[in-house]
Amino acid sequence: MRIDMITLFPEMFAGPFGASITKRAVEKGILDIHFTNFRDYSFDKHRHVDDSPFGGGAGMVLKPEPMYRAVRAVLEETAMHAASRRVLIMDPAGPVFTQAKAKELASYEQLVFICGHYEGFDARIYPLADEAISIGDFVLTGGELPAMVITDAVSRMLPGVLGDAESAPTDSFYDGLLGFPQYTRPRDFEGMEVPEVLLSGDHAKIRQWRHEQSLRLTKEKRPDLLAKKALSDEDREILRRLEQPG
Amino acid sequence: MRIDMITLFPEMFAGPFGASITKRAVEKGILDIHFTNFRDYSFDKHRHVDDSPFGGGAGMVLKPEPMYRAVRAVLEETAMHAASRRVLIMDPAGPVFTQAKAKELASYEQLVFICGHYEGFDARIYPLADEAISIGDFVLTGGELPAMVITDAVSRMLPGVLGDAESAPTDSFYDGLLGFPQYTRPRDFEGMEVPEVLLSGDHAKIRQWRHEQSLRLTKEKRPDLLAKKALSDEDREILRRLEQPG
Repeated sequence: MRIDMITLFPEMFAGPFGASITKRAVEKGILDIHFTNFRDYSFDKHRHVDDSPFGGGAGMVLKPEPMYRAVRAVLEETAMHAASRRVLIMDPAGPVFTQAKAKELASYEQLVFICGHYEGFDARIYPLADEAISIGDFVLTGGELPAMVITDAVSRMLPGVLGDAESAPTDSFYDGLLGFPQYTRPRDFEGMEVPEVLLSGDHAKIRQWRHEQSLRLTKEKRPDLLAKKALSDEDREILRRLEQPG
Repeated sequence: MRIDMITLFPEMFAGPFGASITKRAVEKGILDIHFTNFRDYSFDKHRHVDDSPFGGGAGMVLKPEPMYRAVRAVLEETAMHAASRRVLIMDPAGPVFTQAKAKELASYEQLVFICGHYEGFDARIYPLADEAISIGDFVLTGGELPAMVITDAVSRMLPGVLGDAESAPTDSFYDGLLGFPQYTRPRDFEGMEVPEVLLSGDHAKIRQWRHEQSLRLTKEKRPDLLAKKALSDEDREILRRLEQPG
């Protein structure tokens, strides 16, 4: 997969992309990441990328021309079929990113991330993107951190990136439930003991316990996830049992 | 505010913290960021921080001892009053981070972020934290990116970090609505024109238009946010008007 980051701050990405799963995906040749600074596509004397908003108000607004030129240059140079690529604009007003979206994005051959910084986009920049994505209901300084978050989540979905040991059926959200509690040595840590069942060697019982714990935790902490999930009759029975006192 | 990152990968933070609002907060002396590698608190020969899960299964689990030692060392060294600090564990099963949580966290004098990487935490690590936080319903390689995201959002809330021009009443979520569309030069970009009202010089009309646009966008894109907001009679009237055909 090819990734293009359209950003004023390519240097922000070095740390996260140098130590995470993204690094491994790049080393394995599965990810190919390129950076384009849209300031290089500002042709005025001072290479401005922003200007004051029409109608007044505080702050600056990112101008349309440098962004259009930068994204078009990338799309022309890479010449990927339009159906194989996706241009994403990092936007707090976009639909919120989820694991389902990560899986969907992992099926493209190219992702182009448009990252603003400090200020808003001129509204005419939005049509340049196929879709807007937000990573949540909070205000960040720029689109760079959201682009890193999405790249990390998508990278994990690409075939060959995760080792078998990691492809992680225990990961939260893989099956719409939170993960079950994990324990390792020591058996007793400051009086907190590992649940007996995990030491029993009875794998059917352990599997059952873990599934019940996932259901219990999801019910306690994220009932909204349970409401969205198609539950089996067995799961419904387990949840009924968990509701009973004692 | 003092920030402590408990992480195996302190080098991941250099890029994002070197270019964003966080950098400015550090330069102004408003933020003081420290890194603690919990591998330095593993006292076995190979400095292991993880081990196989009890009960079997793929993947590794972060051991309790190094993490407890690392966090306790930080808390002892900084000796902040317990009511003035907050220990946060980055956990996909935690409540989802929001702008309201950013404001709340900005009121502490110290935030300690516990970041896992690649694998799960031993369940006995959770009591070490005051609260678990997730940044959304997706799977990431580690807690470092979530910790950066939260630090960025919290930094913006600290007095003196943002300049006046940025304290950004136009930012999404400040008043529970999405931001209004912004425009800058040129007036006509490839046939897309700036709305007339913004060129009118009539500030009352502009303010009214922007507020209506915020309501319209929120209604279209994030009706869940509108449902949560206490609307004025005037806002209700505007929404009624927007619903009428034409």
